[in-house]
Amino acid sequence: MRVLAMLDGTLTDPDAPHIRVDDLGLMRGDGIFETILAVDGRPRELGAHLDRLARSAAMTDIPLPDRAAWERAVQAVLDNWPADGEMALKLVCTRGVDGGDGTPTGFALGMEIGERVRAQRRDGISVVTLERGIDPGLADRAPWLLLGAKTISYAINMAAQREAERRGADDVVFTASDGSLLEGPTSTLVVASGRTLRTPPAQLGILPGTTQAALFRGAERAGWATKVEPLRVPDLRAADGVFLVSSVRRITRVHTLDGERLTDSADLHAELVGYYESEY
Amino acid sequence: MRVLAMLDGTLTDPDAPHIRVDDLGLMRGDGIFETILAVDGRPRELGAHLDRLARSAAMTDIPLPDRAAWERAVQAVLDNWPADGEMALKLVCTRGVDGGDGTPTGFALGMEIGERVRAQRRDGISVVTLERGIDPGLADRAPWLLLGAKTISYAINMAAQREAERRGADDVVFTASDGSLLEGPTSTLVVASGRTLRTPPAQLGILPGTTQAALFRGAERAGWATKVEPLRVPDLRAADGVFLVSSVRRITRVHTLDGERLTDSADLHAELVGYYESEY
Repeated sequence: MRVLAMLDGTLTDPDAPHIRVDDLGLMRGDGIFETILAVDGRPRELGAHLDRLARSAAMTDIPLPDRAAWERAVQAVLDNWPADGEMALKLVCTRGVDGGDGTPTGFALGMEIGERVRAQRRDGISVVTLERGIDPGLADRAPWLLLGAKTISYAINMAAQREAERRGADDVVFTASDGSLLEGPTSTLVVASGRTLRTPPAQLGILPGTTQAALFRGAERAGWATKVEPLRVPDLRAADGVFLVSSVRRITRVHTLDGERLTDSADLHAELVGYYESEY
Repeated sequence: MRVLAMLDGTLTDPDAPHIRVDDLGLMRGDGIFETILAVDGRPRELGAHLDRLARSAAMTDIPLPDRAAWERAVQAVLDNWPADGEMALKLVCTRGVDGGDGTPTGFALGMEIGERVRAQRRDGISVVTLERGIDPGLADRAPWLLLGAKTISYAINMAAQREAERRGADDVVFTASDGSLLEGPTSTLVVASGRTLRTPPAQLGILPGTTQAALFRGAERAGWATKVEPLRVPDLRAADGVFLVSSVRRITRVHTLDGERLTDSADLHAELVGYYESEY
């Protein structure tokens, strides 16, 4: 099931072609996106996602259509989603057609959430660490590398997930050249130790996580401490729980790291899911 | 002027949409491409381009349609290009529709070559060096980073060219973390000293150049030596000529590097263009 809305709020057939072959989104991966979770018709963290879309647009010099247009497209998809329950709502904005008038291409696409993601949320995942090849100062030094912008140039992210599968694992945590932990290809890393949650700083060249932020708010209200600081592999082995979080996967516990079981965090996972859900 | 052919050889309207919004090429920049120069109806280095497309497909695990299909699409575009002179012929292959049956999306698009490229070929270009953030061993160590695969995830390449414009330059030469020179965002670096041409090794995580290979063959036949070896910025300042070469720009001389004029290579440029053209 898919529902597609253009930025003027009109619905259109998601199985029909809507993109020209010379769209720079296709030709050059030159565009940005967000994926939002909606539950029972209500989008989660819509404001934070639209803020991050605007941040990505600024980093890539894409002239982003105004917020009202995105909100209209989101509402059109929500209004026409034929079921209760969950939806993954993807917003995409490309630089538009090559040699065109500069008008960006934008749309909102509502999609079902697959059984694989549901199983991962329930059962946890195994991950491998893979080198991302960047050093901790690179994002600041070289903004043209777009580290921390959520562009659609995700071929590397997809290749890393295939490499994980090749190694018999479900997903990846990227590491920087100095061994610092970064993020998953489509998720944010969160580590729990005692009553403290930690996540790596966005300054390393990773995405500031919308789901991580919601989880931290919920946990703080329950009296937990939260820290944004560099983390390393031994921190994962020593932790009470390691999690990859994203809008679609919500809070997913990591049970195995590079082939070794981590501390069982099933109870802790349920507690953190409760904090996250308390935000909605 | 644009001519679009699908892989079955049928022509279709390039101004109409042909790509679904959930094509992984658009959603994830998950696809590969080649750009070929055709002159007076004859494609240059077609075999080398199709070989490199197959290499990129292998690196990205994309099930590439067979060579005959690409050749058919290329021929359809060539046969229907309404003019003599030059054409840029782009081949694109994506992983296909998200959640689909795994059939890749492929097409061949013939395009005119713009005045900007023609002016750069004639007048030369100024370039800036920009850090690419990779170390020389990374491509071998971390194949999931797809260094040296020609994917459509080119957002960084486009951002680097915008950074060059911001600095008042035309283009970029990327540098590795140890200062080694890599390539341009859409071109190969060639340096001439005496009667020797040099280019950096593909093992650094850069694309093996089809135009560079043709130039080297032509120059070798004229008695020049050629070397594939690491180069550094001082090599550019000491050289008799520095060139960015690609299918569409052919052989373009670099007259200015990071704001400083390089040795005038106008005569040398004409000589090298002759060697390159002697291949066709």
